[in-house]
Amino acid sequence: MPNTPDAQAYEEMTRRFATIAHLNGAASLLDWDQMTKLPPGGREARGAQNAALEGVIHERLVDPALADAVERVAATMDPDDEFTHDWVRQAREDIRQATAVPAQLVEALALTTSKANAAWVKAREASDFASFAPVLAEVVELNRERADALGWTEHRYDALHRIYEPGSSTERVRGLFARLQAVLPGLVQEAAEGDASRQDDVVERPIAAAVQERIVRDVTARLGYDYDRGRLDETVHPFAQAIGVGDVRITTRYAEDRWPTAFFGGVHEAGHAMYEQGIPAALYGTPLGRYASLAVHESQSRLWENHVARSQAFWEGYLPHFDAASGGTFAGVDAPQMARAVNRVYPSLIRIEADQVTYPLHVILRFELEVQLIEGSLSVQDLPDAWNDGMQRLLGVTPPSDALGVLQDVHWSIGAIGYFPTYALGSMMAAQLWERMEHDLPDLEDAMRAGRFEPLLGWLQERVHALGRRKLPDDLMTAATGRALDPEPYVRHLTHVAQGDLTRRLTS
Amino acid sequence: MPNTPDAQAYEEMTRRFATIAHLNGAASLLDWDQMTKLPPGGREARGAQNAALEGVIHERLVDPALADAVERVAATMDPDDEFTHDWVRQAREDIRQATAVPAQLVEALALTTSKANAAWVKAREASDFASFAPVLAEVVELNRERADALGWTEHRYDALHRIYEPGSSTERVRGLFARLQAVLPGLVQEAAEGDASRQDDVVERPIAAAVQERIVRDVTARLGYDYDRGRLDETVHPFAQAIGVGDVRITTRYAEDRWPTAFFGGVHEAGHAMYEQGIPAALYGTPLGRYASLAVHESQSRLWENHVARSQAFWEGYLPHFDAASGGTFAGVDAPQMARAVNRVYPSLIRIEADQVTYPLHVILRFELEVQLIEGSLSVQDLPDAWNDGMQRLLGVTPPSDALGVLQDVHWSIGAIGYFPTYALGSMMAAQLWERMEHDLPDLEDAMRAGRFEPLLGWLQERVHALGRRKLPDDLMTAATGRALDPEPYVRHLTHVAQGDLTRRLTS
Repeated sequence: MPNTPDAQAYEEMTRRFATIAHLNGAASLLDWDQMTKLPPGGREARGAQNAALEGVIHERLVDPALADAVERVAATMDPDDEFTHDWVRQAREDIRQATAVPAQLVEALALTTSKANAAWVKAREASDFASFAPVLAEVVELNRERADALGWTEHRYDALHRIYEPGSSTERVRGLFARLQAVLPGLVQEAAEGDASRQDDVVERPIAAAVQERIVRDVTARLGYDYDRGRLDETVHPFAQAIGVGDVRITTRYAEDRWPTAFFGGVHEAGHAMYEQGIPAALYGTPLGRYASLAVHESQSRLWENHVARSQAFWEGYLPHFDAASGGTFAGVDAPQMARAVNRVYPSLIRIEADQVTYPLHVILRFELEVQLIEGSLSVQDLPDAWNDGMQRLLGVTPPSDALGVLQDVHWSIGAIGYFPTYALGSMMAAQLWERMEHDLPDLEDAMRAGRFEPLLGWLQERVHALGRRKLPDDLMTAATGRALDPEPYVRHLTHVAQGDLTRRLTS
Repeated sequence: MPNTPDAQAYEEMTRRFATIAHLNGAASLLDWDQMTKLPPGGREARGAQNAALEGVIHERLVDPALADAVERVAATMDPDDEFTHDWVRQAREDIRQATAVPAQLVEALALTTSKANAAWVKAREASDFASFAPVLAEVVELNRERADALGWTEHRYDALHRIYEPGSSTERVRGLFARLQAVLPGLVQEAAEGDASRQDDVVERPIAAAVQERIVRDVTARLGYDYDRGRLDETVHPFAQAIGVGDVRITTRYAEDRWPTAFFGGVHEAGHAMYEQGIPAALYGTPLGRYASLAVHESQSRLWENHVARSQAFWEGYLPHFDAASGGTFAGVDAPQMARAVNRVYPSLIRIEADQVTYPLHVILRFELEVQLIEGSLSVQDLPDAWNDGMQRLLGVTPPSDALGVLQDVHWSIGAIGYFPTYALGSMMAAQLWERMEHDLPDLEDAMRAGRFEPLLGWLQERVHALGRRKLPDDLMTAATGRALDPEPYVRHLTHVAQGDLTRRLTS
């Protein structure tokens, strides 16, 4: 006879997690506002508001009454009740992560990263790594302590990486990245040699920011981003932010002489946001009503950005609208030309400006270095040399300054070690999902040409979004595509892009 | 020998109140966002986020450890340490208000006002008071219970009114309003007879919303609203919102064929915001680092709106800028004509559109009716007739429908009974502060003509803003002007306005 979980415990667990979710929603709004609307005078108060709210959330999560309710549910649930099992598993994991790190270490991390971030801003401006090195060394050391508090068996870095990518491991990432590293440098070199054929002024034709904004709104709405449950604002560093059910916002930035920045940036963030908009409202407030991992999140943004909006089929449909909206700026340009122009491949210094073929090489470099920092085989003071050597080895370029090299990313300064690999893992997942989608939806390209994106979004909603955090990323990939994460679809996709083959169906 | 308050208790009291203030700041941001940026799909989640945060704040305020810290400070403080005395008095009052009302009643009020507000929105649309009456009766009954929980001796309404206006009372408001009522109806009638001389199309000359926005930014910045610590957005119902130290925001709305809506509305909200910007950062996070009362708040908005921006001296200085900013729309208009046009006095139906002379009569009507509702001498079902009788008696007009009468204001539907009088009390305080300022700053009018507003703002900062909530409103008025709140300066001011005497110095 199936058991029914203790109703009172279930209600208490649900209510307590819902409150935590609502407080997290409030904290998300504080972050969104800080990046988009906050007047300069309000920064200090915002820091204090964030800290107060994070403190309350942490307190609620480590409240023994919550763990007790979860365990009472666990003790009474039906062995076949998969949903409640998933619920309990994720609840335990949330509580474990919150309780594992001692309050003193949490505080030290907050203080040190706040100091480190300020030091990084200055160091980058002055291209002065030496001034950043001592506090970065402290951040690394505290992250080693944090990893030990969270627990690990194979590799200390595992504990940090899994904060962002549950179920992943250093060895697994190494294996996947080794496959990319075997192929990409050659592809990049080849593409760079044929570079001239894809250099095209269409990406530099000026479009006023206000016009670009209308275009970004238009294209993201066509793809399926729901503006009744979101909004678009301008920021220096674009992002998507889920604030609550029915409230998932995106931002972009406008460069008047380089429209792809806002266009593909907007599509990228809309990809993230459509994922959050697709997580069922019924799961909201539970530990399952969230994205599965950062790589899964990135798979959604990259799929819409790279597989949809940079494809020739997309431009066959969209170019007339784009040309009209920009006042005839692209008269005479055809879809193949546009697809070539927005897929130019060439080695460059800055990760966030990299094309999709060179991009994973930037990520691989950061992964290698941060693993070495955490295992202690690389010291912070040797980081700039290691960076420059790696850039030369992987991309064939050497940064002329640390500002354009080792100081370019914010992540380490805010203590986010273990995060970088998710960017490339996400792109890898995107390619695998795309191949499967092409298999399942035979008229995918025709739909894109006709501007019909509902079948794509519907497929993603059903296979990915609807699950929330019910599955670990690898299980999610297996359920969605029939196999665990596999680098080959990504290698195939990047090979096509590098070779300028932008029409060929990957699976054909 | 002076005592030093228990240092550990003082630290604990300070830390706990600071956390509450930061959480309140987060709650303020949720409100601001809801009125300005929230997508429609996010409304339900926002309600839940607000409730979760309010719950946390309430929990912290009623935590016995907080009251205990306050009492340990109280027991050890020096009798001559006025600052700590003020601190403890206000801390006790905040805790008392939070603990006095039982959780069950708080919940019933939240539920019922949520229902009542929805019913009011529909009832106003349909001008159908009967559909709103039953839930309004529940709101009134719950407010009677709330008054009893908060405690009162003279009049049950006192307890509700003091939520908004500490130290005030029904009898005191009655006395002050009686003086207005003796004078204003006659003044209004007189002005209405001479109406034609002040009807002027200048208030209807069209200005594009984007131009109006630039003008509102310009004029509020000139008056002293600091945009580094604030921002201007658009809303249906304009408001000012303090979110934290260095972050006080204003909103306005634009009517293209009636620029005074945005112009004086913007100045009004900037007046509120300059008050909040003037409260010392050092007080922030303590129970003293807030506005003294709603009437004191309104005194600041009304002073800048009515005494400054509607004066002839102001327009003598500002008109050339205004004309230039609006592209020559006001060529040939002079300052006396402008001052007359923006001070037209005539009886009308809607409070928020009323001129400054008829305005307090709208407030007096609401005060009379809500006092009767709370004491039980008027039933909710008789409210529309009582409203219409009052409008005829006070203003000589009768609403053609309940939508334009008893259903026009949101306040009762959200349970805010006792709030209305603060609007007229604030205008009264503004007139008294203004007379004193004229006395203290002999070149006040010349400064306004020259566009120098620092002396005015400096005076207000010193006499009002710097005090935060250290004094009760009457004590604050006495300290600032040499006497308690007195209706005569307001009567003098309104008499001048009604008689079209817009240049005469009040004290000359």
